[in-house]
Amino acid sequence: MSDKAWGGRFDQELDALAARFSASVDFDQRLADQDVRGSIAHVRMLAARGVVSGADADAIVAGLSQLREEIAAGEMPWDPALEDVHMNIETRLTARIGEAGKRLHTGRSRNDQVATDMRLWTREAIDDTARRIDRLLGVLATRAAESHDHLLPGYTHLQRAQPVRLSHHLLAWAEMLERDRGRLLDARARLNECPLGSAALAGTTFPLDRDATAAALGFDRPTRNSLDAVGSRDFLLEAVGALSICAIHLSRVAEELVLWSSQEFAFVEMSDAFTTGSSIMPQKKNPDMAELVRGKTGRVVGHLVSLMMLMKALPLAYNRDMQEDKPPVFDAFDTVRDSLDVLAGCLDSARFDRARMAEALRRGFVEATEVADWLAERGVPFRDAHHVSGRLVRRCVEAGKTLPELTLDELREEHPSFDESIFAALDAETAIERRALVGGPAKAQVEAQVAALRARLAERA
Amino acid sequence: MSDKAWGGRFDQELDALAARFSASVDFDQRLADQDVRGSIAHVRMLAARGVVSGADADAIVAGLSQLREEIAAGEMPWDPALEDVHMNIETRLTARIGEAGKRLHTGRSRNDQVATDMRLWTREAIDDTARRIDRLLGVLATRAAESHDHLLPGYTHLQRAQPVRLSHHLLAWAEMLERDRGRLLDARARLNECPLGSAALAGTTFPLDRDATAAALGFDRPTRNSLDAVGSRDFLLEAVGALSICAIHLSRVAEELVLWSSQEFAFVEMSDAFTTGSSIMPQKKNPDMAELVRGKTGRVVGHLVSLMMLMKALPLAYNRDMQEDKPPVFDAFDTVRDSLDVLAGCLDSARFDRARMAEALRRGFVEATEVADWLAERGVPFRDAHHVSGRLVRRCVEAGKTLPELTLDELREEHPSFDESIFAALDAETAIERRALVGGPAKAQVEAQVAALRARLAERA
Amino acid sequence: MSDKAWGGRFDQELDALAARFSASVDFDQRLADQDVRGSIAHVRMLAARGVVSGADADAIVAGLSQLREEIAAGEMPWDPALEDVHMNIETRLTARIGEAGKRLHTGRSRNDQVATDMRLWTREAIDDTARRIDRLLGVLATRAAESHDHLLPGYTHLQRAQPVRLSHHLLAWAEMLERDRGRLLDARARLNECPLGSAALAGTTFPLDRDATAAALGFDRPTRNSLDAVGSRDFLLEAVGALSICAIHLSRVAEELVLWSSQEFAFVEMSDAFTTGSSIMPQKKNPDMAELVRGKTGRVVGHLVSLMMLMKALPLAYNRDMQEDKPPVFDAFDTVRDSLDVLAGCLDSARFDRARMAEALRRGFVEATEVADWLAERGVPFRDAHHVSGRLVRRCVEAGKTLPELTLDELREEHPSFDESIFAALDAETAIERRALVGGPAKAQVEAQVAALRARLAERA
Amino acid sequence: MSDKAWGGRFDQELDALAARFSASVDFDQRLADQDVRGSIAHVRMLAARGVVSGADADAIVAGLSQLREEIAAGEMPWDPALEDVHMNIETRLTARIGEAGKRLHTGRSRNDQVATDMRLWTREAIDDTARRIDRLLGVLATRAAESHDHLLPGYTHLQRAQPVRLSHHLLAWAEMLERDRGRLLDARARLNECPLGSAALAGTTFPLDRDATAAALGFDRPTRNSLDAVGSRDFLLEAVGALSICAIHLSRVAEELVLWSSQEFAFVEMSDAFTTGSSIMPQKKNPDMAELVRGKTGRVVGHLVSLMMLMKALPLAYNRDMQEDKPPVFDAFDTVRDSLDVLAGCLDSARFDRARMAEALRRGFVEATEVADWLAERGVPFRDAHHVSGRLVRRCVEAGKTLPELTLDELREEHPSFDESIFAALDAETAIERRALVGGPAKAQVEAQVAALRARLAERA
Repeated sequence: MSDKAWGGRFDQELDALAARFSASVDFDQRLADQDVRGSIAHVRMLAARGVVSGADADAIVAGLSQLREEIAAGEMPWDPALEDVHMNIETRLTARIGEAGKRLHTGRSRNDQVATDMRLWTREAIDDTARRIDRLLGVLATRAAESHDHLLPGYTHLQRAQPVRLSHHLLAWAEMLERDRGRLLDARARLNECPLGSAALAGTTFPLDRDATAAALGFDRPTRNSLDAVGSRDFLLEAVGALSICAIHLSRVAEELVLWSSQEFAFVEMSDAFTTGSSIMPQKKNPDMAELVRGKTGRVVGHLVSLMMLMKALPLAYNRDMQEDKPPVFDAFDTVRDSLDVLAGCLDSARFDRARMAEALRRGFVEATEVADWLAERGVPFRDAHHVSGRLVRRCVEAGKTLPELTLDELREEHPSFDESIFAALDAETAIERRALVGGPAKAQVEAQVAALRARLAERA
Repeated sequence: MSDKAWGGRFDQELDALAARFSASVDFDQRLADQDVRGSIAHVRMLAARGVVSGADADAIVAGLSQLREEIAAGEMPWDPALEDVHMNIETRLTARIGEAGKRLHTGRSRNDQVATDMRLWTREAIDDTARRIDRLLGVLATRAAESHDHLLPGYTHLQRAQPVRLSHHLLAWAEMLERDRGRLLDARARLNECPLGSAALAGTTFPLDRDATAAALGFDRPTRNSLDAVGSRDFLLEAVGALSICAIHLSRVAEELVLWSSQEFAFVEMSDAFTTGSSIMPQKKNPDMAELVRGKTGRVVGHLVSLMMLMKALPLAYNRDMQEDKPPVFDAFDTVRDSLDVLAGCLDSARFDRARMAEALRRGFVEATEVADWLAERGVPFRDAHHVSGRLVRRCVEAGKTLPELTLDELREEHPSFDESIFAALDAETAIERRALVGGPAKAQVEAQVAALRARLAERA
Repeated sequence: MSDKAWGGRFDQELDALAARFSASVDFDQRLADQDVRGSIAHVRMLAARGVVSGADADAIVAGLSQLREEIAAGEMPWDPALEDVHMNIETRLTARIGEAGKRLHTGRSRNDQVATDMRLWTREAIDDTARRIDRLLGVLATRAAESHDHLLPGYTHLQRAQPVRLSHHLLAWAEMLERDRGRLLDARARLNECPLGSAALAGTTFPLDRDATAAALGFDRPTRNSLDAVGSRDFLLEAVGALSICAIHLSRVAEELVLWSSQEFAFVEMSDAFTTGSSIMPQKKNPDMAELVRGKTGRVVGHLVSLMMLMKALPLAYNRDMQEDKPPVFDAFDTVRDSLDVLAGCLDSARFDRARMAEALRRGFVEATEVADWLAERGVPFRDAHHVSGRLVRRCVEAGKTLPELTLDELREEHPSFDESIFAALDAETAIERRALVGGPAKAQVEAQVAALRARLAERA
Repeated sequence: MSDKAWGGRFDQELDALAARFSASVDFDQRLADQDVRGSIAHVRMLAARGVVSGADADAIVAGLSQLREEIAAGEMPWDPALEDVHMNIETRLTARIGEAGKRLHTGRSRNDQVATDMRLWTREAIDDTARRIDRLLGVLATRAAESHDHLLPGYTHLQRAQPVRLSHHLLAWAEMLERDRGRLLDARARLNECPLGSAALAGTTFPLDRDATAAALGFDRPTRNSLDAVGSRDFLLEAVGALSICAIHLSRVAEELVLWSSQEFAFVEMSDAFTTGSSIMPQKKNPDMAELVRGKTGRVVGHLVSLMMLMKALPLAYNRDMQEDKPPVFDAFDTVRDSLDVLAGCLDSARFDRARMAEALRRGFVEATEVADWLAERGVPFRDAHHVSGRLVRRCVEAGKTLPELTLDELREEHPSFDESIFAALDAETAIERRALVGGPAKAQVEAQVAALRARLAERA
């Protein structure tokens, strides 16, 4: 008869390939700390309810605490033959403290146990990710505060569009990250319920105190339905969904760093500490870190798709398919964590080239909107003003000029309203300062945004 | 020179294929109502700020209101040559009210306009979806209240596991849907900021009152960064992510309806109104609606992938790629809406077969956990008790018996602790009632869950 | 009793929402021509086998031929109440020719019928796509032939790397498209088997001549297993997979067109016929077509994910979920078709700016590899030569020079081997011509590649 | 100055996090054997062309051969500080054989080197996968040959539809797998071109013999364009696309094994060697292997999405993002490999329950098509015959009878044509044997299919 936890009705050992195929301890050992803490909370509650004796509970808690240290020290010998993290820990506990160890699993199943472990792990991973987002936000705040006077073209369609401040641009990235953080915390709030007590799928006959275990593990409350508690994984889909959106935002930041690192833009020079070279082209200084961040987006989104396909059309309650939820979740958090940190390093150490930005601004016809607005403010219907300005740009392109280089006479050939005051309107700094609405690039606005961001970060620190 | 809104610097007309390829009015006309309401709020604010005259504003509002009725009546003649919903409306407005119409676009760009329209549309679509989830929850509450006494096997690995009540199972579905609703509402809260005033990407020089427009359109506040406001679409990714998870939950419900409709399970008979037959096999009564709900999951998740790939690595701010955000968003909401309604209809009209469920329960060895628990409660370590019970099941399988059909002698051959009281423990109703923890299948628990669900629904109605 | 094709055992009409939810004629009418042709082949074979009379067959063929014209003319009145394209056609046929029409469905089911229609449609869509790929390849061949003397930097990591010819770059795109075409044709070869005769799932008792129907419809042979024939859709997954890869290739071409259209690169100016402007920024000339092509990539890949999720874990044979295969397949082909044509138009009408490319080449240190190779050819180990060249680049960056501007003395300070002949090696044209291996940028090579491409196209025309 | 291969123009060491983030040797060491073989072929060609001396080449080949054994024995000490597999191998080679080692990299770049390694690896992985598909096909052939007389219902919509043979059903799975194999081999044929000689992106000035290297490595020819050769990864997308479809097919097989293992179907009993139990429910015998195979589908498809998103919109030629291609490719092949082998084990050792299948057949009204066909053969239009049969089924449902239990009088009440011969038509074996078309379930057909499959396997062995 099989030695497995479930061996009673089995005649034959598991096939070697099947054993390897189904063993999860290679990856679920990552839940070891959560598993031990869950077990400690469970057995203390069992003792409080008189289901196990105080002496047994004490022995179990002592044994688990010792195991926890062993695990933290990397000294736990994980055995694939014991299938998963739960059986490895229970087996080692029982080997060490004897019969009492076998009582730990009372009123519990691996189904509610692993659901609890994953919720604890994900909650902690979210908290960690939120902290790293805040660190990157801190870097953005610092760099933004330093770059109010770096004027550059804002782009649409990768075409120079209107002048903005570099701080304004960096603050746009900060907005995205703030929402990413919010999404993760919403996911955290929703998942923070304790499955323990749901047992295999239908609860248990033991008089557990579900509120006590939930509280001991920092959960807001026990889950409300045992079939759902062991059979659902939407908390993982939601968390990896939030990570995917964050990864997409990071890919957008990375894309701009790659563009800005090109010789064509040259708005930024990444530090040597965050770039690499070529084994064949000695002149190369490649924005590899930004490229890798961009490339890893697919990895995170791929994990989301993997999880969604995994859960599609699974009947209640637990199915073994769900064991496959762990690798993508772990890797998605790891990937976003490193990407956040690497981008923080890149941005912290990058040198922004104010002169190159100014040069791009000078040659981009970004004053064309000013011309149209100037006319519109003087009563020309906007659509007409826009056409006048467009014709002026075409004239410049043909003559190889910039808009400020046109004469008043040339301007008046396209519309009689022009007077000398138009030239002041064509200055980039002026154009920016006139955009003084909330959310705009005027200095007072971006300064206020930086201050508000710093205040939020201070509050969360 | 081109007639387009942007024609000033162009010599040549847009190629016919390019025009068709880039026109969006076929699908973005769906934003017409939001677009008109946004324009009304915008022009009223412009008048309040003195940017347009009161007379012009009145003419515009009157014209737009008339257009709104025309649109609602399906009488608006959409012209692909006018590219998109915005230009169609503005052009028709100007045709009708003259020059004043051209002043509407003052201090605005299509970039902030479409971002506003999409936020309004998505907000309203979320509200609608939440209502439909509540309707399906209402059906589940009703059917659960009727089915406390339908006992059936709970399943894990699609193997009969432990007895539960049908109400308990239906309530598990309700839990999933509650979280789906929560996710949508979190997305709604996060997106409810007004981009108007962000203009093309860098705000505008006109003295707009962004708070006023935001309030008039029911937004909580204006967006905080103009580049982000026109360049981000994470609100759509989040909403479609929430819909995807909901669709996956619906696929799980659908899967169980398909399984339960099979002759093998036969736990449910769908009404004729929600099934179809075969053109070649006269006996067939197919659970087509459930199959289609299941099949449409891929459609929603496909849209999510489409949107995520769309936004990957796009530099700030607006890029034309983002026009492609609309079809997947519209179709994702439509698909989930219909799937919710169809499942509500299916479940409302289905007949659950209590006798078949009871029969499945009788033959499933689902009392094996009771045997193990019975021993564990009498001091046998759980892992040992489990082995004893497993051996008894094997004995039954070999003898073609059920567990209650074993004699006390047979039981004692496997473990000496057994006495007569074991037989009472093997009754399914008893087994269920002993699972009286929060979230378990005991009648008091499921009744409390139904009551709590109904109270929540009443509060939200 | 229901009027449906399958109404025999049904008491109640289909619910209105369910009817709308399950009707497919809105989209599967696109299979009308294939459906009619399949029916004609089927009934001719039935007559040849004596299953229907010659007179009935003649009446059916005549009726179907008339319907086919009606469909082509857009005059067929599609009725959603008749569910799908098959029932619409059969019903209209029977209305027109009477009882004989009812005999058409003999020995056939909608299951093998729709599988046949989809294979025919996909085969024809592949042929059409292959032709459009060839058209785009033709444009690339023409532009490449014109641009052998446009020298520009080849890029890695978006950093200027080594000099190439524009023709070499355009030919790289052609290689990708050639493989895309090959994948589609492999898919075509694999799908070209005829399901007719598989009936609902288990074949039919009628003495059909499967070889005859297959041949009449241009299939290579009948399918080999009836369950598989009606229950599999991998031919669609494969086709849309091939389209997805093609769309990714088009997104790469589009990305480069967007980059090259930026003022920073300015390597290309798209024609007015394939660009648009901004409603607010009069100077803008946006590469919208390329952006849309890039954006639509997600759409195609989203459809692939949709189909894969659709088919995951479906038991044999037909399930109604599979009705959902059509919209993503149709849209994927449409999207790639238009993207191919739009890019052909963009590339055909674009103006490449040789001077800007040359300027980028001059300032990119792309000669650094030449320096290293020059040393390596003179016996310096490559890794050492590379370091010397890297130090020279650093010296240039610090001094604001290009490599050709260094003096021989400066060169010798880094390595004693340098002599005057190094300066000739630094010329871009020379560097390119020295790369004369198969697949390299030397003129003889790219000319040979263009010729070979044209020869392939001529052969396929 | 940095020690890296590319350190020449760098002042500062790579940041530690950046180093970890960008190092690939953890995963690309899996390419070690391919890398060494590629290097051996490269250096032999260099010697043949006189680019390196015979003595150097001999030393390099000897050193690499020694390294190859070391790698195979797992004794190579991989150093993350050396970034990737290529630098690890070259560094160790040079440490061992001295200066000559530095000459290996002449006329080559990591860009063409890694592209070559990945093509070699993928080609070999495809060959391995094809062999494992054949092994599974062999198991299916064997089980099919044994199960011609296992009659069971064929299903559509998971409803019993028409009688088939188990062998017919198993052969449907074989058809899917045959196409999966074909797709992989098509991918193999397309990728089998040698990138060596493309160098970093633009070829090289060294007089390489690309044909010789290609031939030495078993490639059909050199690649045709150097930018494409180092910048494209569609061969990986195609291979993982083919694996994804295969994984979906395996998920369908797995789904049916899960269904058939349920107590409700009970068509199959998996062997103890391929099932596991429950830690809490002693009666459970879970089809875990099939569930895991089903669950891993998402993993493979997730990798495909990851790769597609990775490559989207990347400009030519190599970008560092592409380093991320390896983990998904490796894991996709590993996952499909194990899934194939596990399913082969499951199917090889499973016991099919002929009695349970027969019982399901008896109670499924699967004879209804026979009734309709019987009438149709006697001149009743098929649509009418179908309605008659549907009414008979309804009558049976109401009376609790099977179709063969109806009397002739009862039959005639629905249609006057019925006579005694109808009863013979209702026998399942008869019904099956009458379906004797190619691809149908008649015994001669399935026997021929098994024989043909075995012949193909014998030819490929």
